[in-house]
Amino acid sequence: MEDFEFVSPTHFVFGHNAESKVGPMLAERGARKVLLHYGGQSAIKSGLIDRVCASLEQVGIEYVKLGGVRPNPEIGLVREGVALCKENGVDWVLAVGGGSVVDSAKAIANGACIDYDVWELITKKYPNTEVLPIAVVLTIPAAGSEASKNTVISNDELGMKTGYASNYQRPKLAFMNPELTFTLPPFQTAAGITDMFCHLLERFFDDVGAVPVTDGMNLSVMRTIRAEAPRVLAEPENYDARANIMWAGMLCHQGLLGMGRHEDWATHGLEHELSAYDTTVTHGAGLACLFPAWMEYVYDANPARFAQYGYEVFGLAPTGDIESDALSAIDETRMFFASLGMPISLGELGLDEDNIEDAIAEMIPTLRENKGEPFGSFKKLTMEDAAEIYRLAL
Amino acid sequence: MEDFEFVSPTHFVFGHNAESKVGPMLAERGARKVLLHYGGQSAIKSGLIDRVCASLEQVGIEYVKLGGVRPNPEIGLVREGVALCKENGVDWVLAVGGGSVVDSAKAIANGACIDYDVWELITKKYPNTEVLPIAVVLTIPAAGSEASKNTVISNDELGMKTGYASNYQRPKLAFMNPELTFTLPPFQTAAGITDMFCHLLERFFDDVGAVPVTDGMNLSVMRTIRAEAPRVLAEPENYDARANIMWAGMLCHQGLLGMGRHEDWATHGLEHELSAYDTTVTHGAGLACLFPAWMEYVYDANPARFAQYGYEVFGLAPTGDIESDALSAIDETRMFFASLGMPISLGELGLDEDNIEDAIAEMIPTLRENKGEPFGSFKKLTMEDAAEIYRLAL
Repeated sequence: MEDFEFVSPTHFVFGHNAESKVGPMLAERGARKVLLHYGGQSAIKSGLIDRVCASLEQVGIEYVKLGGVRPNPEIGLVREGVALCKENGVDWVLAVGGGSVVDSAKAIANGACIDYDVWELITKKYPNTEVLPIAVVLTIPAAGSEASKNTVISNDELGMKTGYASNYQRPKLAFMNPELTFTLPPFQTAAGITDMFCHLLERFFDDVGAVPVTDGMNLSVMRTIRAEAPRVLAEPENYDARANIMWAGMLCHQGLLGMGRHEDWATHGLEHELSAYDTTVTHGAGLACLFPAWMEYVYDANPARFAQYGYEVFGLAPTGDIESDALSAIDETRMFFASLGMPISLGELGLDEDNIEDAIAEMIPTLRENKGEPFGSFKKLTMEDAAEIYRLAL
Repeated sequence: MEDFEFVSPTHFVFGHNAESKVGPMLAERGARKVLLHYGGQSAIKSGLIDRVCASLEQVGIEYVKLGGVRPNPEIGLVREGVALCKENGVDWVLAVGGGSVVDSAKAIANGACIDYDVWELITKKYPNTEVLPIAVVLTIPAAGSEASKNTVISNDELGMKTGYASNYQRPKLAFMNPELTFTLPPFQTAAGITDMFCHLLERFFDDVGAVPVTDGMNLSVMRTIRAEAPRVLAEPENYDARANIMWAGMLCHQGLLGMGRHEDWATHGLEHELSAYDTTVTHGAGLACLFPAWMEYVYDANPARFAQYGYEVFGLAPTGDIESDALSAIDETRMFFASLGMPISLGELGLDEDNIEDAIAEMIPTLRENKGEPFGSFKKLTMEDAAEIYRLAL
C-alpha cells in the first residue's frame, strides 16, 4: 500500500427534502451573502431555484444569482462570477446543479480570493488556500464534484480544457435529494452512471499491487452501480435505486476508493481532449467509447488485474486462462455501457477515420501539459499510444 | 435508504513515518501549546513519545504532558487534563496511543471549553460545539476513535461507563503509521480486530432493508478483515497486512459504512455493561463472547440477512435452507473469533453462572440510560432479553 493523505470535509445532508435545509445550515455557518450559481432552465422550471431562494430568504441570507453554466463550464462565466463575488462581498458560493455548475463554483470560489486572473491559477496550478466556502444542491449524480477536490474548466478562446485540484475547494456542504434526479432524461442518467463507473476504473487499474481494503470497497461500488443502473433506467422514480446511484456518484470521486494506490487517469485525459476537440461530445459518452479501447490496448501489462475485475464485478467464472478472462472482462465493460444506451465507438458520435486523424493531429500536441512525457500508471503511454487508442475506439 | 447526515473532517496522514509530520502539520494549523496525552510505558519505551516531542520542538510548539490513560479511560484523569488545558492555555490536544487515549483526549477537548464539569456534559448529552481541536498518533487499530464521533468514559466512583457522541469532537488530524503496530502483542491485535469487525456487524444488522451501496462496502471490509487478520497474527511485521487492518479499523467506525441504515448497537451496550461490571474484561474479548450469542437470540427476525452475511463474508454456499444458512453464518462468526485467539464464552473470562446471575442483577438496572425502554434495531430487546443473551454467552 502506498503512503497517502486523505481529507474529505464535506458535510452531507442526504435524503428527502434535503434542499430545504440550505438556508438554516448556511445561516448556522455564518453565511450572509451567497452567490447562487446554476445552469440552464431545468432548475428554474422545476421550481428548485425558487425553493432554494425561499430557504435563504427565511433565514435572512442575501443572494446574487448567476445562471447559465453550460456543460464543460467556461472561464468567461467564471470571471463574471468572480467579479460578482468581489463587488457584492459574497461570503459563500452555492451551486445548484450538476458537476459543471459545481466545477464552475469551485473556480469562482478560488478566483474571489485572489488578486490575479483565475485562469492563471488554474493553468499554472498555483497552490491557493483561501477559497470561499462552497455549498452544493446536487441535481445530477455523475462527476462527484459535490465532494471531490477537482474542477475542470474550458477556455474557448484558447481551445483548452484543464483541471485544477485542491483540498481547499472541496465543498463544505452537499445537499443530496435523490428525488431531484427523478426527472433526469435517460441519456443524462446513463452518461452520469458511465462517468462515475469510470472514476472507479481509473482508481482500480494502476501499477500498484493489491490494496484489499480499498480495492474491495471499489469493486463493491462497481457491483452496486452495475446492479442499480438498469433499475433507475427502467424505473426513473424508484427512490432507493436513485439514492444508491446518487451516493455512489459521490463515493466514486471523493478519493477514498483510491487510497493507497497510484491511480491511472489516462483515459480521462484522452476524453477531456476529445470533448475539447468536439464540444458536442458528452463526457460520459466519450468515456464509454474510450475506456474499453484503453483496456484492450493496455491489459497485457497485468491481465490478472482485469480478470479479477471480471470475476468480481461481472460475476465471470474463471476459465483457467487469465488472458481470455481479461478479454471477457473488457467485453463485459463494453456491453455494460451499451446496455445503458451509451455509444461504444467514436463512429457513433459522428466521427470517422478522417476526423480522427485530423483530431489526433490537433489534440496530441496539447494532450498533456507536460508535453511529450509518458502518462498513465497501469501502463505508461506516449502520444503515439494515445493516437492508437483513439483509432481503436473508432 | 434512510435519510442521513454525514461529516468526517479528519485529515489522514497514512503510511511510513507519518508521525514525523506531527509538528509541521500542527504548526500549519496554528497550534502553539499542545496537551500531549498518552497511556502507559510502551509509547515511552518505544521512543515514540520522544520522536513526537522532537517533532513539536522543531517547529517551536510547546507542550504539556499527561500520560497514564488506562484501558476504559476514567473521568479522574480527564478532569486533570481539563485543568491542565485551562491552566496552560492549551490550544490543541494531541493523543498518542489507541482508542482509550483518543477517547480520553476527546473528553478533555470538550471539558477545556466549558465552564462546568465534563462528566455532566457526557452523562446529560448536552450539545457542545466548542471543542479544542484534536490530533491523533494512532498505535492500536481497533476502536476507530481516530475518526469517529464517539468517546466512552468510565466513572469508577459511580461504577458507570457511558458514551458521548458529537461531530465536533472528531479529530482534525490522524497520523497512522502501520509500522507503529508491528510490536502489538497478539492478544491486543486480535481484540482490536474483533472490535472493528463488530463495528461493522452493528451497522449491517438492523431493521432497514438492503442499502446496496453501503452494505456492499461494509461486507467488503469484513472480507478484508477476515483475510488480513490471520496474516497480521502470523507475520506481525507484514507492512501491507498491518496497513490494511489499520485503515479498516478507521473505516469500521467512521460512520460511512452505516449510512442510510439505522444500525443496531445492542451488543456494544451489553459489552459496555459487562466490562463496567468486570473491569478486567477487554472490550474486544467481551464482544467475541457476546456477539454470537446476540446473533443466536435475534437471527429469526430476519434469517435472510444473516444468510447473506454468511455467503458474502465467509463464502458459504447457499443450501436452499435460509434458516440453516443463517445458523452457519453465526457458527462461522464464532469460529473466526476463536481463530484469532479470542474467548468465545464468558466462562473463558472466568465468569460462571452464579457470577452471571449476580452481574445481571447489578447490570440490568443501568443497562440503558432510558431505563426499561426496548433497545437495539434488528430486534427490539428488553432487559429480560439482555439477561438471556448474557446466559447464552456463558
